[in-house]
Amino acid sequence: MIDHGGVMQELRVILGERVQDSEALRAQHGENESWYPQALPDFVAFPRTTDEVSRIMHLCHRLNVPVTAQGARSAIEGQHLAVHGGLALDMTNMNKIVAVHESDLDAVVQPGVTREQLNAELRTSGLFFPVDPGANATIGGMASTRASGTTAVRYGTMRDVVLALEVVRADGRVIRTGSRARKSSNGYDLTSLFIGAEGTLGIITEITVQLSGIPEAQAAAICRMPSVEDAVNAVIMTIQLGMPIARIELLDEKSVHAFNLYADTNMPEAPHLMVEFHGSERSVKDQSEAFGLVVEEFGGMDFTWSKRSEERNRLWTMRHNSQYAERMLRAGPIDQYSTDICVPISKLSDAVAAAYELGEKYGMTMCVIGHAGDGNFHCGIVIEAGNLEERARAKAFSDDLARIAIRMDGTISGEHGVGMGKVNLMREQHGDALDTMQVLKSAMDPKGILNPGKIFPA
Amino acid sequence: MIDHGGVMQELRVILGERVQDSEALRAQHGENESWYPQALPDFVAFPRTTDEVSRIMHLCHRLNVPVTAQGARSAIEGQHLAVHGGLALDMTNMNKIVAVHESDLDAVVQPGVTREQLNAELRTSGLFFPVDPGANATIGGMASTRASGTTAVRYGTMRDVVLALEVVRADGRVIRTGSRARKSSNGYDLTSLFIGAEGTLGIITEITVQLSGIPEAQAAAICRMPSVEDAVNAVIMTIQLGMPIARIELLDEKSVHAFNLYADTNMPEAPHLMVEFHGSERSVKDQSEAFGLVVEEFGGMDFTWSKRSEERNRLWTMRHNSQYAERMLRAGPIDQYSTDICVPISKLSDAVAAAYELGEKYGMTMCVIGHAGDGNFHCGIVIEAGNLEERARAKAFSDDLARIAIRMDGTISGEHGVGMGKVNLMREQHGDALDTMQVLKSAMDPKGILNPGKIFPA
Repeated sequence: MIDHGGVMQELRVILGERVQDSEALRAQHGENESWYPQALPDFVAFPRTTDEVSRIMHLCHRLNVPVTAQGARSAIEGQHLAVHGGLALDMTNMNKIVAVHESDLDAVVQPGVTREQLNAELRTSGLFFPVDPGANATIGGMASTRASGTTAVRYGTMRDVVLALEVVRADGRVIRTGSRARKSSNGYDLTSLFIGAEGTLGIITEITVQLSGIPEAQAAAICRMPSVEDAVNAVIMTIQLGMPIARIELLDEKSVHAFNLYADTNMPEAPHLMVEFHGSERSVKDQSEAFGLVVEEFGGMDFTWSKRSEERNRLWTMRHNSQYAERMLRAGPIDQYSTDICVPISKLSDAVAAAYELGEKYGMTMCVIGHAGDGNFHCGIVIEAGNLEERARAKAFSDDLARIAIRMDGTISGEHGVGMGKVNLMREQHGDALDTMQVLKSAMDPKGILNPGKIFPA
Repeated sequence: MIDHGGVMQELRVILGERVQDSEALRAQHGENESWYPQALPDFVAFPRTTDEVSRIMHLCHRLNVPVTAQGARSAIEGQHLAVHGGLALDMTNMNKIVAVHESDLDAVVQPGVTREQLNAELRTSGLFFPVDPGANATIGGMASTRASGTTAVRYGTMRDVVLALEVVRADGRVIRTGSRARKSSNGYDLTSLFIGAEGTLGIITEITVQLSGIPEAQAAAICRMPSVEDAVNAVIMTIQLGMPIARIELLDEKSVHAFNLYADTNMPEAPHLMVEFHGSERSVKDQSEAFGLVVEEFGGMDFTWSKRSEERNRLWTMRHNSQYAERMLRAGPIDQYSTDICVPISKLSDAVAAAYELGEKYGMTMCVIGHAGDGNFHCGIVIEAGNLEERARAKAFSDDLARIAIRMDGTISGEHGVGMGKVNLMREQHGDALDTMQVLKSAMDPKGILNPGKIFPA
């Protein structure tokens, strides 16, 4: 048991009024965007410096207080929920852009910097931070969950763009991993170890990310497809042809229906592909035309592409609002959950078909939407609020879908992560490699104070 | 002390005649391509299956026998030398290409498959394995040393192209890391942990690698530059402009001199850039022309580009033979050593200038050659055979150069690795993060039997 008063007193020495235990603040930091129950931390701290984080960890290590780092709290699998209580470490006050090295195409940021904040800062540089998970997540949270999103097919995931980290270890020691060199062979890849560890191995306090040059030209296109299968097959061919497409998203009929309801639009309610091309003026034109031929082969209709930025913004705003739009699929109070899997591209068509079959079997109200170019898709599920029986069916659906991904040599999550929602599948996914992860966890965090209850089954 | 006879007897049960302890075989497996002294293992084993490797590790773990995996033995920093004796695990008999998934652009190979072997197998598929360190290394060795080479600027390093591994742990347990999905957020990134670990955390027994489509068109070009500084500045601008160049190599005057001596050619003895463009016919033409304008700006002369494959092959064969050509820089019996660093691209010009200054200071016979597009370059050093005083100067040169890389927020090795040659710099590079690496090492290999003497200072 935590000595609440004693811990609070010691935290106050480090943070003054920047640690709180009010019911309201604890409740706010106990919420999530999925259906996981509220999980209240005992304290909420707002550190401003690495040194403060180090002192907090040193203290919590000594007193066995669980610590769960939080960013924008937009995680979908409950990664940021302090399910064992203890301290919620709200990193959003550590939101300085430390340096932008334009000529090296990299930036150094504190973990609370959001991707939109960084891109706003970069506006005049001709550079941009390419990873785009939709939500305006913090870069620290994105690193911790190995986030990706619509642009990963071209620009990679957080695994690919993070060059270096500063991390506070479980006992408060501060380390720096990596460098600003573009490649390195100088010992263990600690950077990759912390990326996707969901705060269970250390607290990320600084991130060096690669940036990309804003392409000379960009064009977006949308295309109606006769069926999801045709849409997926067009994606598979696009990838297999090696087209350097910047985004390629699948929307099924149900998602388009949801968009129409949400944004009062009147798109034909059929499967669509939304794509974006980046490159020189000529290359964008070439890509658009080549893609037009591919979708034509699979019966694509109404293929239009546009270089106008309003058109593009309209399209991607719509895509980014999918989580809200999905709520329209069902009247009355609802709970919402999005599950994702990722499979080798040749299996994508079968995987999506399997998702529909499972949806039928479990009676799900859902739509399929996804980053098809990576073999990654989401099932957006809407259930009656608080209906535990339906929630259990949705969980069974998600588990079965993940098992199909495993059988296809894919992954139980392409980008949402493990959190609480997929811990029960970790053994099936990893077999004995899960023990290896546990060995690393025990070595790095022997007291188990870093985000307990995540990644590993109890 | 190892009970030689007893260990041999038990190894024979597993491997029959495929374990040997003859002086000749031990000597052969104790050689290296740098100046590190011969280091004889006590035994040399040639496993054929993962199960055999597992049984060997189980045995060696029980009996505290050091195990050093070996591939083509082309490592430059002595990674494969069994400096503490024990067992050299020659993986070259595990050389099956397990599967090629053409439609997913990946292949599954045993660790003893060489990159040339894999590319020969892929010849009719329209795909290729893009990582090219020069030597015909094994894929297992390349994974273990996080190899890269001339094409990394476009296609990435082993860190980027390895999707999944099968690994035998120190005690013989077999795990599988990763999947064939293109991205994943499903727990710790074990794959990245083993990439570059130089066999100190486990024995890699299977590798799944991403492949790339052979581009529709390729062109190579070579260009004479007024000075190394101009050459480097042309590279920096090329990278900063975001040109998707496939290779961009710097050769200094001395390297060209060495090539002329080695291949009896008569290139003008001045700095050169060697580049390659991949893409569509049109894109290759566009890239070549754009690059031509860049080098022109920095005084480039005799810029010629060619799509003819004989021309391209001639050029890259020359580049790949640099290690042999460098031997011509000095008459009489010589020892040879190549050191490498990698810095943020904006520092490349300063780093190369510093290398020349240090070369003067330490009286080195050397040339500079490198993967300039990554900010990575090599100093090829030739010393009088067996001259220990000169060797000590060369080591001091290499250490000082590495320290300059650290000061520039770069790395002590971009691709050659740590091995024995850079262990003394690991603390300066990583600070307290080296302790974190040691924590992982102790957790994964508590008896310290996996390639002892590497990565960590004694």
